[in-house]
Amino acid sequence: MPGIIEVQAVIFTQGGPTAVINASGVGVVLGLKNSPQISAIWGALNGIDGIMEERFVDLKAQSDSVLQAITFTPSTQLRSTRKKPTSEDNRKMLDVFQKHGIHYVFGAGGNDTSESLDIINDAARERKYSLRVFHVAKTVDNDLMENDHTPGYGSAARFVANAFRGASLDNQCFGGLYIGVCMGRHAGFLTAAAALGRQGPDDGPHLVYLPESPFSLDKFAQDVEAVYRRLGRCVVSVSEGIEDASHTPILQVLSDGKLEADSHGNVQLSGTGALADRLVEYAKKHLESKGVVKKLRARGDTFGYLQRSFPDQSPVDREEAVGLGKFAAQRAISGDVDGSCAIVRVADNPYRSEFRLVPLKNVAGKTRRMPEEFINKDKNNVTDAFIRYGLPLVGELTQLGQLDFSKSVKI
Amino acid sequence: MPGIIEVQAVIFTQGGPTAVINASGVGVVLGLKNSPQISAIWGALNGIDGIMEERFVDLKAQSDSVLQAITFTPSTQLRSTRKKPTSEDNRKMLDVFQKHGIHYVFGAGGNDTSESLDIINDAARERKYSLRVFHVAKTVDNDLMENDHTPGYGSAARFVANAFRGASLDNQCFGGLYIGVCMGRHAGFLTAAAALGRQGPDDGPHLVYLPESPFSLDKFAQDVEAVYRRLGRCVVSVSEGIEDASHTPILQVLSDGKLEADSHGNVQLSGTGALADRLVEYAKKHLESKGVVKKLRARGDTFGYLQRSFPDQSPVDREEAVGLGKFAAQRAISGDVDGSCAIVRVADNPYRSEFRLVPLKNVAGKTRRMPEEFINKDKNNVTDAFIRYGLPLVGELTQLGQLDFSKSVKI
Repeated sequence: MPGIIEVQAVIFTQGGPTAVINASGVGVVLGLKNSPQISAIWGALNGIDGIMEERFVDLKAQSDSVLQAITFTPSTQLRSTRKKPTSEDNRKMLDVFQKHGIHYVFGAGGNDTSESLDIINDAARERKYSLRVFHVAKTVDNDLMENDHTPGYGSAARFVANAFRGASLDNQCFGGLYIGVCMGRHAGFLTAAAALGRQGPDDGPHLVYLPESPFSLDKFAQDVEAVYRRLGRCVVSVSEGIEDASHTPILQVLSDGKLEADSHGNVQLSGTGALADRLVEYAKKHLESKGVVKKLRARGDTFGYLQRSFPDQSPVDREEAVGLGKFAAQRAISGDVDGSCAIVRVADNPYRSEFRLVPLKNVAGKTRRMPEEFINKDKNNVTDAFIRYGLPLVGELTQLGQLDFSKSVKI
Repeated sequence: MPGIIEVQAVIFTQGGPTAVINASGVGVVLGLKNSPQISAIWGALNGIDGIMEERFVDLKAQSDSVLQAITFTPSTQLRSTRKKPTSEDNRKMLDVFQKHGIHYVFGAGGNDTSESLDIINDAARERKYSLRVFHVAKTVDNDLMENDHTPGYGSAARFVANAFRGASLDNQCFGGLYIGVCMGRHAGFLTAAAALGRQGPDDGPHLVYLPESPFSLDKFAQDVEAVYRRLGRCVVSVSEGIEDASHTPILQVLSDGKLEADSHGNVQLSGTGALADRLVEYAKKHLESKGVVKKLRARGDTFGYLQRSFPDQSPVDREEAVGLGKFAAQRAISGDVDGSCAIVRVADNPYRSEFRLVPLKNVAGKTRRMPEEFINKDKNNVTDAFIRYGLPLVGELTQLGQLDFSKSVKI
């Protein structure tokens, strides 16, 4: 950027919220704000819409206490959008950038966002407008290429792990079947996190169904039956994105209704309790008709938006989110032109991670799925390798107790 | 109990779990275990079934570290039942009591449990068997007479308050409608707790619908429309038990399906996502057909079992649960014969509570509902009086931050 002494920066957030997007934004601000070349740091409201419409909040003018407080606050203060920029949008954004002297762009989001940034980047090059474009990884789905894991995942996984710890203890009270449906359309990381809170061999979830493996209703019913016969109860973690062998969503298999799609063409699978309810009905019918139990106590919960926005961050997730934002800012200042900021794992025990800049195109529009070594052979549970992978990310969980049942009469 | 030197005690738990039933049980054990007259403290497994079948765990033999750990553990280690004792059951239980010399019975539960204990008490009197029968209040519904609030409510309310804090921030991202359905068939205390996490005047929930007031779908749609027109978004807390003016459950009004009933004759209103989904559809249709918005982003979550079992206790709830259990034990030892142990509030600021023994019959089978002063005139929100009532019960909540939007351009 020769000849330019003072430049402005803009930060925007895109896609579904997480518990630590604000933390990433604060990281970028902290990384930029003492740099004399950055004269303004704008937060665009509602993603690229805010850029086009110049709806900006002055992030450099925010007090330290505000920045500190929002670091601990879930969701995104900058609001969001799911819009993918059209060539008309790019023209408008570049006009705004030129008008204000904005040469640094930071977008926190998932693979859609990396794609959006790549498109903006190409448009800027075409116009020969000097732009530094950085993607800051963010998604509860944990499905970005090049990342060991993404900011937002640890906190969402913490919620899911805690939810299943409670649900498994709850299920012990009366026995029966409990199904919890988790987010994750194509990647099972969040559904798998249900297993991270298990303390004993009979703790739930007893079964885990991920979108990576074809889901068979028959197999599912048999799996539930086997667990129920053994324990008199069964806790199941299911991804909202499970599909059968021909890639038809199971909700669609079990449903006659029509399903909505968002502007990226994704079918609406969250925010409805239908999949949990239908799976519960299916398993109940199976167990009752086979005479395994006369009347199965069976419930389904859909964890919905709580997974991504519950105000209980994983401390390591928050710290990494701030760190990744700072890293993006530093790379921009130190002369890098573009890229996606990713987290790589350096060591497991004690856990240690590092940040790395990778090409935007490596992340854009691609989906990382659970590696095979994290899924058991029967495709109905996770492996110890997954537990080792996930545990450092969720932060410390309260140790739960149990009675010493060896001191019992006639159990 | 003249002539009896050594007696045994039994503790059982009944009804839906809470986050602090174990804490109450530990309180009873701590209150009894140093008393020389109590030779054994049994925990009956699965409530009255465990008594009849002599499935007992030795609670006096549990180590201090086990007792300490389960105090922090949600749900009930003693398992549960919803069975109301028949006269045949009473006969069997009294036989077991006589056989072992069990003269103290402690049951933790809701109004069904108080009723069960009252029935057992009457049966013992008839047989002239000397029994001391104590009910230890417990329910997330907070609907027991004679109690300012009940153990279990504070932790469940904490979860609901946190869930809505996250949901409201989430809803800010994209705008639109969010409905969260909370437990509470006849009493709206838990649904009302959604409001306890609000920090600012525009924080959700913007509307709160309680089972205490007749629910009109028309009025609901108009309320949502008014909030949406003002804020471009709307967050709603709804009780699973809402009914129309003729006492038909709204789920039934909106539904053609059949609904299950439990053995106390209660219709199954939890553990399904149907009410949230149907209310969302209804409001969406209203706003879209009136042209308020072309396509409403609208989602419903049902908080389900997480409300009662999520492993994040309210510290004050846990302490009161332990205290109430101890109180029950002390009253039994000091010569009281029967009663229900209740919490009364002594002061609001700083908050202070006390325990009181009341007649079993005052609590048995009765339901306390939200007092009028806690519900606003429009019947679509809670009052400041409710906030003052509820806040001390949930424990400290993380302070959430927000950007200073006065430092903005063109908002």
